[in-house]
Amino acid sequence: MKKYASLFLASTIALSAVSIPQQEVQAAEVAKPKNVIMLVMDGSSNNAVTLARWYKGEKLAMDEILTGAVRTYSAESAITDSAPAATALATGHKSNDKYIGVLPSVVNSPGLEQVAEEDAFKPVANVLEGAKQQGKATGLISTSEIQHATPAGFSAHAKNRSQYDDIAEQQVYQNIDVVLGGGYDSLVPGELEQASAAFKLGSVKNVRKDGENLLDVLKDKNYAFVQTRDELLNTNASKIWGSFAPSALAYDFDRATTKPSEPTLAEMTNKAIDTLKKDEDGFFLFVEGSKVDWAAHANDTIGMISDILSFDDAVKEAVEFAKEDGNTLVIAVTDHGNSGITMGNLNTSGTYSSIPVSAYIDPLKKATMTIEGALSQLKEDRSNLAEVAALYGLDELTEEELAILQNAENLGNAMVKMLANRANIGYTTGGHTGDDVFLYSFGPSKVAGLVENTDLAHAMAEFMGFDLATLTDELYVPATKALTEKGFTTKIDLTDKENPVFIAQKADVTVKIPVNKNTMIYENTATNNKKTHTFDTINVYNGADFYISQKLLQEIK
Amino acid sequence: MKKYASLFLASTIALSAVSIPQQEVQAAEVAKPKNVIMLVMDGSSNNAVTLARWYKGEKLAMDEILTGAVRTYSAESAITDSAPAATALATGHKSNDKYIGVLPSVVNSPGLEQVAEEDAFKPVANVLEGAKQQGKATGLISTSEIQHATPAGFSAHAKNRSQYDDIAEQQVYQNIDVVLGGGYDSLVPGELEQASAAFKLGSVKNVRKDGENLLDVLKDKNYAFVQTRDELLNTNASKIWGSFAPSALAYDFDRATTKPSEPTLAEMTNKAIDTLKKDEDGFFLFVEGSKVDWAAHANDTIGMISDILSFDDAVKEAVEFAKEDGNTLVIAVTDHGNSGITMGNLNTSGTYSSIPVSAYIDPLKKATMTIEGALSQLKEDRSNLAEVAALYGLDELTEEELAILQNAENLGNAMVKMLANRANIGYTTGGHTGDDVFLYSFGPSKVAGLVENTDLAHAMAEFMGFDLATLTDELYVPATKALTEKGFTTKIDLTDKENPVFIAQKADVTVKIPVNKNTMIYENTATNNKKTHTFDTINVYNGADFYISQKLLQEIK
Repeated sequence: MKKYASLFLASTIALSAVSIPQQEVQAAEVAKPKNVIMLVMDGSSNNAVTLARWYKGEKLAMDEILTGAVRTYSAESAITDSAPAATALATGHKSNDKYIGVLPSVVNSPGLEQVAEEDAFKPVANVLEGAKQQGKATGLISTSEIQHATPAGFSAHAKNRSQYDDIAEQQVYQNIDVVLGGGYDSLVPGELEQASAAFKLGSVKNVRKDGENLLDVLKDKNYAFVQTRDELLNTNASKIWGSFAPSALAYDFDRATTKPSEPTLAEMTNKAIDTLKKDEDGFFLFVEGSKVDWAAHANDTIGMISDILSFDDAVKEAVEFAKEDGNTLVIAVTDHGNSGITMGNLNTSGTYSSIPVSAYIDPLKKATMTIEGALSQLKEDRSNLAEVAALYGLDELTEEELAILQNAENLGNAMVKMLANRANIGYTTGGHTGDDVFLYSFGPSKVAGLVENTDLAHAMAEFMGFDLATLTDELYVPATKALTEKGFTTKIDLTDKENPVFIAQKADVTVKIPVNKNTMIYENTATNNKKTHTFDTINVYNGADFYISQKLLQEIK
Repeated sequence: MKKYASLFLASTIALSAVSIPQQEVQAAEVAKPKNVIMLVMDGSSNNAVTLARWYKGEKLAMDEILTGAVRTYSAESAITDSAPAATALATGHKSNDKYIGVLPSVVNSPGLEQVAEEDAFKPVANVLEGAKQQGKATGLISTSEIQHATPAGFSAHAKNRSQYDDIAEQQVYQNIDVVLGGGYDSLVPGELEQASAAFKLGSVKNVRKDGENLLDVLKDKNYAFVQTRDELLNTNASKIWGSFAPSALAYDFDRATTKPSEPTLAEMTNKAIDTLKKDEDGFFLFVEGSKVDWAAHANDTIGMISDILSFDDAVKEAVEFAKEDGNTLVIAVTDHGNSGITMGNLNTSGTYSSIPVSAYIDPLKKATMTIEGALSQLKEDRSNLAEVAALYGLDELTEEELAILQNAENLGNAMVKMLANRANIGYTTGGHTGDDVFLYSFGPSKVAGLVENTDLAHAMAEFMGFDLATLTDELYVPATKALTEKGFTTKIDLTDKENPVFIAQKADVTVKIPVNKNTMIYENTATNNKKTHTFDTINVYNGADFYISQKLLQEIK
C-alpha cells in the first residue's frame, strides 16, 4: 500500500505539473466518502474456487481481483476455526478457538507476541465499530444465523461463539444500519417449537433465554423488519433488519425448492449497498457466504460450488459498485481452508494428464441440489431414495451403489463420497486445513501480496482513517478499575445470570450498566434524578469484568 | 502490466516536470539490459509451501513477492503434466500430455481456441530462444536430468518428453551459455553400466542410442565441462556445462550424506547469474527445483519440504540480484499442484482448532533425510530397518509400527504414510491436482493477478522485447513446403532412424539438414563446393516434417 501511495503521489504531481486543472477534481475526490466492503466466504479452499470456476464455465468476479494470499493460523493453532479467524479479520488480533472479538488466553503460534495474562478475554474493537465512530453507515450480512462466528467477529465480543443470546443482543443494541441473514430464533424468547413454528425447515440452534424480545427493541429503534426477499427488496427504509430463517438460509442451489422466499446473497448485498451508500460519511459493509464451510465439512462438493458461486455474485455486486464509486475498498477472502478438496484423487493418480475437464464437471452438473437439499426431500421410509440420489446427481445407480446407499449408516456421507468418486474429487479431512488462502481486493489501497489475516483489519482501518488500538482504548475500558479510580464502589450483579449488571455506587449516585446494551442508568437519590443514557457503543461483560466506552465513563461524574 | 506502465509514465513526467535533471539518469536506465529469471518448482501445491514455511520457522523469499495465481490446465486436461505445463510457460501455448515445445493435437479444455489439424506437433518458439535472438546470454538449470520435461520445455521441441536423446542434442547444439543439472547419461553413447560407472547412485533413465558423444561437441564449443560443486564454483568460463549426476541430483536434505560433491540449486543459480550478467545485452535464466514433484508423487512430506526450501534459496538469489540490478524480471511458480497435501487430515477433523503448529512440525523435524535418501541407506537384508525409519523421523516405533514396516510390500509408501499420520498431514492422490497455483513475481513489469500459465511466457517475451508468434515464424518454417516452393525436390532420410536427415535437391545442389543440430550442409557438385553452415538455432523433426529457421532458408539459393 505504501508503494501504491507513492505512485499515486507521483501521478498527482504529474497531472498538476502539466497544467490540467485538477484541483477541483481532486478536492471533490478528497471529499468523497470512503467505503469498505469486506466479503468472507467461510471455509473455502482455493481449490474449491478453481472447481467452481470450471463448473460455471466462465471467469468469476473474484478472478478479476486476485491480489495475493492470506495466512490464516490462529494464536494457538496452525488451523484456525471461524471465531478466531473472524476476530483476526475484524479486530487485527489473532485469538483462540471460540473467542469472538476478545484477546487470546493462549498464544503459541511461532512469531506472535504474547498477550499479558490480565489481557486475556479483553474485548478489542473491530472495523465495523470503527466505521461507526467515523460516522459511517454499517451493514452486516450472512447466509448463516447472523449470530454465527464470522458475522459475530465483526459485530460482537464474547468468550464463546456459542453465546448467541449475547451476540444477538450486542448486534441489536449497537444500531447497525442494515442487518440481513438468518438467526431469527436468537431474537425472540421462548421455546424452540414456538420460535420456529413459522419455518418448515432448519435446525434451530438457539432461542433467547434472557426473556428479552429483541424484535420489540428493533421496532423501538425504527428498523424495517423484513422476513422475505420481497419485503427486503420493497422497503425504502434506511435501517433494515432482515431475518429470513430461524437459523441458516438455504444453499443457493436449494433455495428455489426449499426456501423460495429467501433472498440471494447478491440481492442482500445489493440492497445493503443501495441503502448504506446514502450516508454522506460512507459505509462499511460485511458480507458472508457462510455455508461454503458447512458443505466443506460435509465434503459436499455441490454445496461448496453452490455457495461459492452465489458468493461470487455478491463480490460482483461489490466490485461493480466500487468501480462506479471509485473510493470503495473491496476485500474478499475466505477465513481458512476446509476439507482439503482437490480436482484429482486416487482414481486419477496415474491418468490425470489426459482426463478432460468434463470428467470432473459433467458428473457434478447432474446434481440439482446440495446434500442438505436432497436429503430434505427424503421420505421417512426412504422409499424415494433413488430419486433423492438423483437430485444429488447420482443417477443410474448400479445395484451395488443402491445397496451402499440403502445400507448406509450416514446416508449423506455415503452420497457425497459416491459423487466425489464419480467426479474424481479428493478430500483429506472433514475439518479445516492450514492453507494460505487467496486474497481478492479492489479499489484504492487495495491489499496485495502475502499478508496475515490480521493485516486486513488494519488495512481497512487505515483506509477509513482510524487506528484499531486507539479505538479499543476508546471503546473498551475495564469498568471496575476505572470507576474505582473515580471513587466508586463497584460490583457485578449476577442475580439474573442471563442479564449481568455492573453496578457502581458513590454517595447518593448509583450507576447501573447492563450487559450487551448501549445504555447506562444513572440514579441520584439525593436529587431524585434517574436517567438512562444511551451511547453508540455497547457494554461488554467477559466473565471477569465489564468493559465500557470512554464516552460512557465521562458521563459518570 | 499496462497499469504499471501508465503509472511509470506518470512518474517520469512528474520527475521531469519538477526540473530534476533526470534525462541522463533515464538514458542510462533505458540502455541497461533487461534480464529475466524464471524459476519453477515442479509439482508443488500451495499448501506444501505453507508447510515448508512453518518447517523453516521464518518467512520465505517467495513470501515477499507473491503477486497472484496461475491457471495450469493443459489443452486436453484439467490437470496438466509437466511437459504441456512447461510448453505453456515457455512458449505461450497450452499443449498435450508429453508434448515438448510443439502445438497440441487435442484441444478440449473449455475456452481454448482449436489448433488446425495440420499445425499439430508444429514446433513453437520459447522464451529462451527469443532471448538468444535478442543477443542475450541464456542459462538452464535443473536438479533433475536437464533433459527432463520442464527444462526441456524451455530448450527443446519433441513429440514426447521421453526423447532424451533428441532433447539433449538440441540443448547442446543451440549454444545455451550455462547449463547445469543432472542427465550426464544422455550426453554419452554406450551401455548403461559404462555411462553410470562414475556414479554410485541414481536410477539411469537413458543413454544415447545415436552413437554421438555430446561431450566432444561441448568440448568443440569451448564449454567448461564441470561435474562437481568445486569445479563449478572455481571456473571462470563464460560458457559452462555442469553435469553433476547420471540422472537427477540428490534431494537437498540428502546431499550431505549421499552426494556431497553436488552443488545446491542456490549455488547453481548464483553461479549462473554471475556468469550470465556479464553479457551486455542481458540474459534469460531458467531454474527448476525439479524434485518437489517427485516427492509429491511419493507423498514424501520431507522430500517436498527439502526441495521447496532449497528452491526458495534459489529464489532468494534471483531476487537479491534483481533488487541490485533494477531491470530484472523474476517469476517463480510451480507448474501444477501435486498430491493434494494439506495441513490437517482425518486425525484432525474434529480437533484442528486447538492443535498447535508444533504438532505438525515436530514429527517432521525428526527426519534428517527424504524417503529416497533414507531408503538408500537400507541394507539388502533390511537388518537396519529401524535405523532407516529413524532417518525418516520414524523414531520410537511401536511393535505394531515396526511390523507394518517389516511386512510392507512397498516400504517407502508405508514410511511416508506413517510419518504423514504422525504429523497430521493429508494427501488426496499420488498424481497431480488441478490447483490454481501461487504466482511469485518481482521487478519491472512484474506479473500480478490471476493469469494463465501461457500469459507468463508472453509477459517475459514482452519484457524482453519480442513476440513469440513472430519468433515462431522466424525459427520454425516447415521445410518441405518452403524448399519445394524454391524448386527443390525434398525427402526425409530415415535410413539411420536415430539421425533423420532432411535432404533437398535441385540441379547440382544438395542440401542436407541434420536433425537437432544448428547446421546445414550445402553441396554443389558442379562447383565441387561443400560447406557446412552453422546457425544460432536448431533444426527440429517432429515425425512428419523438418522445421528450419528463416536464416537457414535464406542461405539456400
